Amino acid sequence: MAGNSFGRIFRFTSFGESHSEAIGGIVEGFPAGVKLDFDFINSEVERRKPKNTYSTNRKEEDVVEFLSGLDNGKTLGTPLAFQIRNSNIRKGDYAELQDLFRPSHGDFTYYKKYGINSSSGGGRASARETVSRVVAGALAKLFLRQFNIEFESEIVEIGGIDYTQNKAEAEQRLQEALQNKDSLGGIIKCTIRNIPAGLGEPVFDKLSAVLAHAAMSIPSAKSFEIGDGLESTKRNGSQDIDHWEETNGTLTNHSGGIQAGISNGEDIVFRIGFKPIASIGTLRCKNKEGQIIEVANQGRHDLAPIFRTGVIVEAMAALTIADFIQAHKTDK
Amino acid sequence: MAGNSFGRIFRFTSFGESHSEAIGGIVEGFPAGVKLDFDFINSEVERRKPKNTYSTNRKEEDVVEFLSGLDNGKTLGTPLAFQIRNSNIRKGDYAELQDLFRPSHGDFTYYKKYGINSSSGGGRASARETVSRVVAGALAKLFLRQFNIEFESEIVEIGGIDYTQNKAEAEQRLQEALQNKDSLGGIIKCTIRNIPAGLGEPVFDKLSAVLAHAAMSIPSAKSFEIGDGLESTKRNGSQDIDHWEETNGTLTNHSGGIQAGISNGEDIVFRIGFKPIASIGTLRCKNKEGQIIEVANQGRHDLAPIFRTGVIVEAMAALTIADFIQAHKTDK
Amino acid sequence: MAGNSFGRIFRFTSFGESHSEAIGGIVEGFPAGVKLDFDFINSEVERRKPKNTYSTNRKEEDVVEFLSGLDNGKTLGTPLAFQIRNSNIRKGDYAELQDLFRPSHGDFTYYKKYGINSSSGGGRASARETVSRVVAGALAKLFLRQFNIEFESEIVEIGGIDYTQNKAEAEQRLQEALQNKDSLGGIIKCTIRNIPAGLGEPVFDKLSAVLAHAAMSIPSAKSFEIGDGLESTKRNGSQDIDHWEETNGTLTNHSGGIQAGISNGEDIVFRIGFKPIASIGTLRCKNKEGQIIEVANQGRHDLAPIFRTGVIVEAMAALTIADFIQAHKTDK
Amino acid sequence: MAGNSFGRIFRFTSFGESHSEAIGGIVEGFPAGVKLDFDFINSEVERRKPKNTYSTNRKEEDVVEFLSGLDNGKTLGTPLAFQIRNSNIRKGDYAELQDLFRPSHGDFTYYKKYGINSSSGGGRASARETVSRVVAGALAKLFLRQFNIEFESEIVEIGGIDYTQNKAEAEQRLQEALQNKDSLGGIIKCTIRNIPAGLGEPVFDKLSAVLAHAAMSIPSAKSFEIGDGLESTKRNGSQDIDHWEETNGTLTNHSGGIQAGISNGEDIVFRIGFKPIASIGTLRCKNKEGQIIEVANQGRHDLAPIFRTGVIVEAMAALTIADFIQAHKTDK
Repeated sequence: MAGNSFGRIFRFTSFGESHSEAIGGIVEGFPAGVKLDFDFINSEVERRKPKNTYSTNRKEEDVVEFLSGLDNGKTLGTPLAFQIRNSNIRKGDYAELQDLFRPSHGDFTYYKKYGINSSSGGGRASARETVSRVVAGALAKLFLRQFNIEFESEIVEIGGIDYTQNKAEAEQRLQEALQNKDSLGGIIKCTIRNIPAGLGEPVFDKLSAVLAHAAMSIPSAKSFEIGDGLESTKRNGSQDIDHWEETNGTLTNHSGGIQAGISNGEDIVFRIGFKPIASIGTLRCKNKEGQIIEVANQGRHDLAPIFRTGVIVEAMAALTIADFIQAHKTDK
Repeated sequence: MAGNSFGRIFRFTSFGESHSEAIGGIVEGFPAGVKLDFDFINSEVERRKPKNTYSTNRKEEDVVEFLSGLDNGKTLGTPLAFQIRNSNIRKGDYAELQDLFRPSHGDFTYYKKYGINSSSGGGRASARETVSRVVAGALAKLFLRQFNIEFESEIVEIGGIDYTQNKAEAEQRLQEALQNKDSLGGIIKCTIRNIPAGLGEPVFDKLSAVLAHAAMSIPSAKSFEIGDGLESTKRNGSQDIDHWEETNGTLTNHSGGIQAGISNGEDIVFRIGFKPIASIGTLRCKNKEGQIIEVANQGRHDLAPIFRTGVIVEAMAALTIADFIQAHKTDK
Repeated sequence: MAGNSFGRIFRFTSFGESHSEAIGGIVEGFPAGVKLDFDFINSEVERRKPKNTYSTNRKEEDVVEFLSGLDNGKTLGTPLAFQIRNSNIRKGDYAELQDLFRPSHGDFTYYKKYGINSSSGGGRASARETVSRVVAGALAKLFLRQFNIEFESEIVEIGGIDYTQNKAEAEQRLQEALQNKDSLGGIIKCTIRNIPAGLGEPVFDKLSAVLAHAAMSIPSAKSFEIGDGLESTKRNGSQDIDHWEETNGTLTNHSGGIQAGISNGEDIVFRIGFKPIASIGTLRCKNKEGQIIEVANQGRHDLAPIFRTGVIVEAMAALTIADFIQAHKTDK
Repeated sequence: MAGNSFGRIFRFTSFGESHSEAIGGIVEGFPAGVKLDFDFINSEVERRKPKNTYSTNRKEEDVVEFLSGLDNGKTLGTPLAFQIRNSNIRKGDYAELQDLFRPSHGDFTYYKKYGINSSSGGGRASARETVSRVVAGALAKLFLRQFNIEFESEIVEIGGIDYTQNKAEAEQRLQEALQNKDSLGGIIKCTIRNIPAGLGEPVFDKLSAVLAHAAMSIPSAKSFEIGDGLESTKRNGSQDIDHWEETNGTLTNHSGGIQAGISNGEDIVFRIGFKPIASIGTLRCKNKEGQIIEVANQGRHDLAPIFRTGVIVEAMAALTIADFIQAHKTDK
């Protein structure tokens, strides 16, 4: 059913498949009268583009066109619709896969859900849709500028190797994967600064729960940790308490800035783990008759998409915070 | 804002604080004509009760009374409302804490959100509200019986120790914590069997994302992993693929039964990590003047609530699946 | 599907059937720190009670019990749950109707929707559920007190007779209907004063559209008119314009206080027409075999429920405005 | 707040202003595998275009472009996004109105809501957005074809004159209004045929209530009547009952096909009254200093837009029914 929206007040509704005419979306709840910084939006889109030898060689022009909600570049308070044309459609790449279910892909599950077999190379399951998230997230960041709220992401692990400490080792692991036409995942840490206390709802819509929802909606996400995450589960309670500072805030931030589901004003910190993508050199597919068929992967995919994922993580974080900032206006 | 509901079609709306007259909720979307198995509902509530020396000594009678939606024990298709009276209210326990913010509790964040200081001992932040989740989850399980969908949970780690292998070691860790008036967290694994393929929405409402939302809404949740979770992030892609079985299904289940956000028919497997609770022997609180004040904890709390948490985890899983089962009826 | 809630931020979720243990609901989005005026709530419930010889003789005690969301009578910001026990259940009255579809009642349509035949005398279709609306509406009015927003309703027509001018004639019509065990409907006009300008959403959730939704959800509602309503449709445009006053506001209020779906600060005025209820002296029912069976109506029903409907109309208006007041906080 | 969506499962989200780059929307919940009949969609758009001397002379090309959700013209089950470029933007027409509030327009109320003064000639308040409703409604009709559900609309009154009987008289009234640069409203009746019984929710989301919401969201709507509407309010109950036919259905259809908020299988019949638009020859505007300023209306507007409104009414009806058809799948 309708499940293409994220947020309640600051709300993003997404459309588009990997090979449709365009992808894009509608952002509601952006207040009126704000001059949009289009350079910033474009720079965010740029951050998502293929970067290095470990990235896909699909050329994505990604020209963002705004369709509504603006008057001379200023927001009207009405829905901000935007599109990015899919200029570089090469359906031919996927012709061979037409009637096959790739392993660990969405082909089979989409077939079970919708009853059809899309020839569109993964369609809406493709990470292509994340460019729309980046645009919407950039809008959320622009909305949050007035509150000085900032978002930062960094790769903390690649293929199980601590990327903050052992970059040489990680580089070697990447080279090996490249040669083997294999792929690697990793972990991204995101920090949100200058967040006001009081964001989040008591029971189901805890800030941590909605951040987890946002995080796990990103393609390939496998794990979510708030604050010290799994480390916290191993400690004694006495070691995990964030004691008050005499003046302001807390001495530690084990909780990652969220207590009882509501922000306490400390930095919000969370980590998302991403699996290595399954679109590697050779794919052992299945057809509808149940036969296993080996196909050499022709699609243009990332061996280590994690280099492009940080801006998507930040986008989902920004959309989450923007919505809670709006919702918080109604608490008192 | 309104954030006390979970689910879109099979929907649970919760009410109640730790010390209000009653807690309870409303379950919508349960089809008509089903004879409710009240013994099962009560047995689920029983599973959540304090169990052993590591549990709270708060006596919770937890008599579930259904208020609506039934005719001679059969569902009418209309909202199923229920309440559990809070018979054992001892507000006096919290009198000393009246104007204090306990560390790593919701006192401060609730104050920042609502602008008031509740004398209700944590109020809605208390894990007391989870009994309502258990009742709603039991209803979800009853709805799912016709599909033979089953839920199982087990403790896989306590205080960092593998509870499936080293139970003696874990026992020792628990005894130490008990003596030190300290607390311990752990990890629970949940398995959902006989799930149909095709559940989940493509982008934001991936089944894994909504399960993460459900999971992280449980008090003290710190981490969520789907399938092999963090292990997957360390592998090569070639090692993480779930290859097709010749006959049916997949040879492995690294994905935890969800691919591209949609169930593939394999068991759904996920793990939730819980921190040790912060209500330990001595609490270094802060008052509104910014002074640190040490208070001996008088409240009745669990040292290792994880022994009671499995049924809550299953309840949230059942509510999630019930909603997707309903939503899936509209896909084709 | 889930359709028992009204409102997005200030939201009311209702439960209960005519003959269930209790009816009631949950109100979310009421800010914290407000001392509730229970006398007012009870007086609103009193306004809905059978009043005169034209009303049902069902004795409804209607004791409202609040279950949550309060601390010493002050709101906590958390869900306000309440119940009214159905003390005076006389299912026997409906035994004869067990397997019959009354004409112009919900028996047949509920059967088609849910696939079951309720023995509960109309169950959720009964106007009994409106007492919960009155309680929730009273809460909305209490929330709106700080803005001085006021609600007034009056009967403007009964059985086609202008009740503001020809009360004697209407009285005669009522006496006739009473003698014939017949029933009468009428029209209620509602005025909302001191409303701020700027409430309403541009396209689908125009304030007038949501008021219409609220109005037409009341049992027996047949028509909704905003401002001059049908009169406006007969005029020239030049006669229907609300010209500006030199100082403030407009010279006329043909629009009923809403222009382009958004309040302009003038009084909001609307009318709802109610049909005469179908529960008259003799009912020509149908059974599942398709036979017509005449039954003398034993149920306790109103001949002219419109005398009790004003407070329900105001309640729905108050719930609507409360939600838009909350939503408007996020516009700028 | 976010209020640009209509429907819960079959859901339409709209974007665009009168003078933005494009208008359009996203339709979710359309099942997969349906070959879209684009000729039909275009013919529906054609029905909304200016028709006669009483219509605006704004030339609207209205080329509908689908952006997503399709593979070779067949639906994928994913969001159907579409746009219509606003090719004929003449902002200059509105330059004189830049800082003025027209009477009985949205200029003032939008200013109060959003705090800005749009120079876009009414922006989102313009009836221009209804072309998107027509496209979405055409999609809903295509979805409903498999159920044989049909929609018909007719003008039953213009300027207070019965248009089904006295067309000559109405013609004269129209000519007069044209000469005086005045405008006329009227009443449209809509009939929905072959509707299954069982659509609608018991309390707030009665089918009649949601139809009223849909109806009153159309620009200029002033009244909504279900079935016999106001006529019913004047009758005795004994005259308003829809008695059972011996074989099937009911002898009369006073109720308009909806009883207790749920469809009974008879034709659904409702009427919407539209006021004459306020954009007549001379406009007595107000500026922000409170001065009244007379302006000759230069905008391109309809004198009798009701000739174009039928297809919009049907579109909203179709969107409503499509959503309830989807929701009904989850009732049993």
